[in-house]
Amino acid sequence: MPKIVDHDERRREIAEVVLAIIARHGVAGVTLNNVAEESGWSRGVLSHYFTNKDHLLEAGLRQGMRTISTNIDEAATDPDARNALRRVLEEVLPLDERRLAFARVYVAFLAEAIVTEHLRHYFTYNHEAWRTVLETLLQRGESEQTWRLAESPSTLSSRLGALTEGLRMRALIDPALTPSAQRAQLDAWVDDWLDR
Amino acid sequence: MPKIVDHDERRREIAEVVLAIIARHGVAGVTLNNVAEESGWSRGVLSHYFTNKDHLLEAGLRQGMRTISTNIDEAATDPDARNALRRVLEEVLPLDERRLAFARVYVAFLAEAIVTEHLRHYFTYNHEAWRTVLETLLQRGESEQTWRLAESPSTLSSRLGALTEGLRMRALIDPALTPSAQRAQLDAWVDDWLDR
Repeated sequence: MPKIVDHDERRREIAEVVLAIIARHGVAGVTLNNVAEESGWSRGVLSHYFTNKDHLLEAGLRQGMRTISTNIDEAATDPDARNALRRVLEEVLPLDERRLAFARVYVAFLAEAIVTEHLRHYFTYNHEAWRTVLETLLQRGESEQTWRLAESPSTLSSRLGALTEGLRMRALIDPALTPSAQRAQLDAWVDDWLDR
Repeated sequence: MPKIVDHDERRREIAEVVLAIIARHGVAGVTLNNVAEESGWSRGVLSHYFTNKDHLLEAGLRQGMRTISTNIDEAATDPDARNALRRVLEEVLPLDERRLAFARVYVAFLAEAIVTEHLRHYFTYNHEAWRTVLETLLQRGESEQTWRLAESPSTLSSRLGALTEGLRMRALIDPALTPSAQRAQLDAWVDDWLDR
């Protein structure tokens, strides 16, 4: 029987290797050679899937985004609305190696997204999906009487989204923003807005 | 008499050309050829000051940051504390060509700042300077009884800083965030925090 190769699975596997390299060495550490070495696939096999470094990075970006989307969908169904909200927000902060790698590759593509239409749509679409989850959760907590909102769920979700995105950028370059410092800021915002 | 060349002045002049090109064509539009053409200086003269594209971009970043610092210092002394606060926050948003160019080159260097110590310090130092101006303004408005603060000036300045930075990132890729939409968000935050 001929061997059946699952190309999508192999692409995902390689993309995970890209993210692991970014977590340890940053975006600059991603080269065809490094990915070949870490993944165990030859450069010949790699080049069948990805023709250059930018393709490898974009694969890492998309794989990281898929993982985040899956985690957000799961977090949003947490029976405790406050936990759900915190988990959905924390998913985009660089709180561990996985999320640090994603935040780095995200920033690396931000500059390119400004001038590249398909990336701009991709970023805007994913941000809007995330914001919609936040809005739905804010409504849910209100109808479950977990909290009272001082503003509309739509306004608050935009605001929490912008805050979290700003914190993510800052945390990438300011060593004072350790994971626990990031969590403390997030908790203060959530507490401040959800209980007045 | 020998001609006296003000090298710093010439560097600034070239850096302004870099920013003008970024405003119109993005970071990718900056090449030694384009800068030579727009500035009127030959490539030979240019290469005396900047040896490659990255140096040109970093000159644009630093020139843009100097302009912003000067404007912030001036804005902070606006006799109306609320105007002063708004102007200091708006200085970092992409509300016109000058600020759009700066936001773009800032994002282009963010990814590099993650792995480059001198850039990380430069970014962190400038952000902290900006946040300190915000904190001082928040205190000033309170002592002038322009507003009452629901949180400490230090906490609120971090929060406004993160919000504004998140909005800046979003505005760079989401066409719905026109200058007036950005201003509306900013005004809503300021009004919400300063009058309860």
